[in-house]
Amino acid sequence: MTSQDELESTQLPAETEAALERAVESAHRHELLFSERAANIKQSAVRDVFDISIRPGLVSLAGGSPYLKSLPLDDLGRTAERIIAEHGLEALQYGGGQGMERLRQQICDVMAAEGILDADPADVVVTTGSQSAQDVAAKVFCDPGDVVLCEDPTYVGALNTFEAYQVDVQAIEMDEEGLDPHRLEQRIKQLLSEGRRIKLLYTIPSFNNPSGITMAAERRQRIVEICRENNILIVEDNPYGLLRFDGNPLPPMRAGHPDDVLYLGSFSKIFAPGVRLGWALVPRHLHRRFYLACEAVVLCPSPLTQMLVSAYLAEYDWQGHLVKTRELYSERCASMLSALGQHLPDGASWTRPDGGFFVWVTLPQGVDTYPLLYQAIDAGVVFIPGAAFTPSDEPSNKLRLAFSAVSPEEIEEGIRRLAPILRAAIEERSSRN
Amino acid sequence: MTSQDELESTQLPAETEAALERAVESAHRHELLFSERAANIKQSAVRDVFDISIRPGLVSLAGGSPYLKSLPLDDLGRTAERIIAEHGLEALQYGGGQGMERLRQQICDVMAAEGILDADPADVVVTTGSQSAQDVAAKVFCDPGDVVLCEDPTYVGALNTFEAYQVDVQAIEMDEEGLDPHRLEQRIKQLLSEGRRIKLLYTIPSFNNPSGITMAAERRQRIVEICRENNILIVEDNPYGLLRFDGNPLPPMRAGHPDDVLYLGSFSKIFAPGVRLGWALVPRHLHRRFYLACEAVVLCPSPLTQMLVSAYLAEYDWQGHLVKTRELYSERCASMLSALGQHLPDGASWTRPDGGFFVWVTLPQGVDTYPLLYQAIDAGVVFIPGAAFTPSDEPSNKLRLAFSAVSPEEIEEGIRRLAPILRAAIEERSSRN
Repeated sequence: MTSQDELESTQLPAETEAALERAVESAHRHELLFSERAANIKQSAVRDVFDISIRPGLVSLAGGSPYLKSLPLDDLGRTAERIIAEHGLEALQYGGGQGMERLRQQICDVMAAEGILDADPADVVVTTGSQSAQDVAAKVFCDPGDVVLCEDPTYVGALNTFEAYQVDVQAIEMDEEGLDPHRLEQRIKQLLSEGRRIKLLYTIPSFNNPSGITMAAERRQRIVEICRENNILIVEDNPYGLLRFDGNPLPPMRAGHPDDVLYLGSFSKIFAPGVRLGWALVPRHLHRRFYLACEAVVLCPSPLTQMLVSAYLAEYDWQGHLVKTRELYSERCASMLSALGQHLPDGASWTRPDGGFFVWVTLPQGVDTYPLLYQAIDAGVVFIPGAAFTPSDEPSNKLRLAFSAVSPEEIEEGIRRLAPILRAAIEERSSRN
Repeated sequence: MTSQDELESTQLPAETEAALERAVESAHRHELLFSERAANIKQSAVRDVFDISIRPGLVSLAGGSPYLKSLPLDDLGRTAERIIAEHGLEALQYGGGQGMERLRQQICDVMAAEGILDADPADVVVTTGSQSAQDVAAKVFCDPGDVVLCEDPTYVGALNTFEAYQVDVQAIEMDEEGLDPHRLEQRIKQLLSEGRRIKLLYTIPSFNNPSGITMAAERRQRIVEICRENNILIVEDNPYGLLRFDGNPLPPMRAGHPDDVLYLGSFSKIFAPGVRLGWALVPRHLHRRFYLACEAVVLCPSPLTQMLVSAYLAEYDWQGHLVKTRELYSERCASMLSALGQHLPDGASWTRPDGGFFVWVTLPQGVDTYPLLYQAIDAGVVFIPGAAFTPSDEPSNKLRLAFSAVSPEEIEEGIRRLAPILRAAIEERSSRN
């Protein structure tokens, strides 16, 4: 069975055939019950290759998992033991919907390290991962047909979230300095002239997922002004802000603009995704509705994992851990850039990120990277095709490579496996011209 | 300051006044950005009294928190230590969106104990608490204006969830045997004759929150048939199913009806809410969309808390713990019923639940229990006014009392404090006639 078959077929054991028949029979009847938005809820392309990419021997440059091996697991285990043994009645009980006050204070310290110096714990809502905050933002602000602006390319999870709320996601091409304020302004003008309602600008200004591109500092200020002038709320998603390889983090767009930006942070990349904790720093005038909507979705974030993160921030050298992992990601990024330079054919280009997890490869116009995925899997390497990261249904000549979760040796080997596939595709494309 | 002031005022420290002014200034501008559904997102009445009810000396009969003191916290701490020390790279990393396979298998064992013998782990989705599953059900099935049927009274969190999706929640009065099939059928006919789209019946058939009422076994079968005939999906919320005081759990509506019922379970009442884990057992023909919508909201449930629950189910006598807590809840319920009988005035009546956490008190027609809450707080006891548990905006002559989280002595004292307030309200009402 080839990988394509594997991706596209679903094999059911014989004993479930009766159930399948029942299901098919009743499918029609219940299909009528789905909401209009349900048609927009689709499989993430990242998940498409999730099962495939954990096959032994395969080099996965697909998933953007953080490196966890440098966490002091034995110590963290003892910390969790103490939390449950000594504070179990709090850790295992329901908690407040906004999150624990101590953790919200510590989150303000984390944001201070990111460059936001005026955050008030009262304006923070702890969320079940940053994804949940995105979902709530879409829920609270977007009616069907409303426009959300974003970078092209952007985070696939955000695209799926906005599309699930029947939002018209308008992606604006970036250059090497990120979103271009002029282009943004033009698009806003055009949309407004068409009578469209623009609600949000969703942006990942630092080390954009998937492109690795960072928005230049001077553009940040200008884009805040443009959005303010047009009454567009900025949703700034900054999971990688503290993972800049060299120098201090760039000040987020939220820094100095408390009323203009809904800021989203995450513990997934600076600590661990398994605790499923992120946060939103919400402009005060929007806080109550946002918080109530968060509470309506999950009642409260897990007190147990909140207390674990709180202890990690209080008792461990979390900034020292960040220094170590930043160095490691920097090395891995360098390995990837070096392997790309060594192995990739003429006609391929790629970004050179200053932080984060990803490199974005561009092939010549006309090459579609989606079918190349199946060839790559057969060759023992996985990536995410670029089409996943844009609302358009057009084929894409881009692909995302993640260096965060693989060793320099695996990166080298993965690129070595990938290169001939890209070379053949480029040659095949040229021969068609 | 009286309690009413405390509930209704918000005091800001002087130093935040400038921020407040900024916020008020900009409030108008961003108010335009809220979605239509945002207007329907409101504060839960249960949360209204959350802060109040943790004041020292107050007896809270408000919150339905489970009893956790009988959990083996030291052992659970060591289990968590082992999970992180030995499996931390899995526990702290991203996991699959559907939840871990081992836990889904164990969830099928839990459901077997509840009376569902044919559940397949492939049809289970682990969710961030049962609340999240309700949110996803509303998202996947309900367009604005669609009808969801429910019991009157019903769980306030479900009401908030459905209303946030602009659903028309139609509550159908129960008698002492739960939802009346005849009344249900009449309401369906009426709504269909008005051209309304009915999508779901949301029901808590066992030990309904807030009333404690249980739907009779013979009614369950009939209600499944009525819903099937009318192509209405049943959302069966069964967090208390295993907390029946005597005898075996009643078979859920899902038992024997795999295609008709979306079944929601929770670890909050049989283990601990702090892990924020529940599950949905989804009819196979609806599974894919439901699962994708869950994934879009949180990416994955916490692998760390999933592994803790999985270890609890595998290595601990979870059924023995249930037997112990059921006895305790039964005793507390008996204490409450006894105290009500001893202290409450003529004209008040109440339910006699066979399980769960709640007793539902009915006062004479014309008494509004909401203003009584403030008097009760001043007298040192908290309850939830009945109006919270119905979509109607009418005043309610009911109130919910929770016995799960308070000792028999506190229950007795709480009812002793509450009784004169109810008596005065009833007398005042009579004198008006």
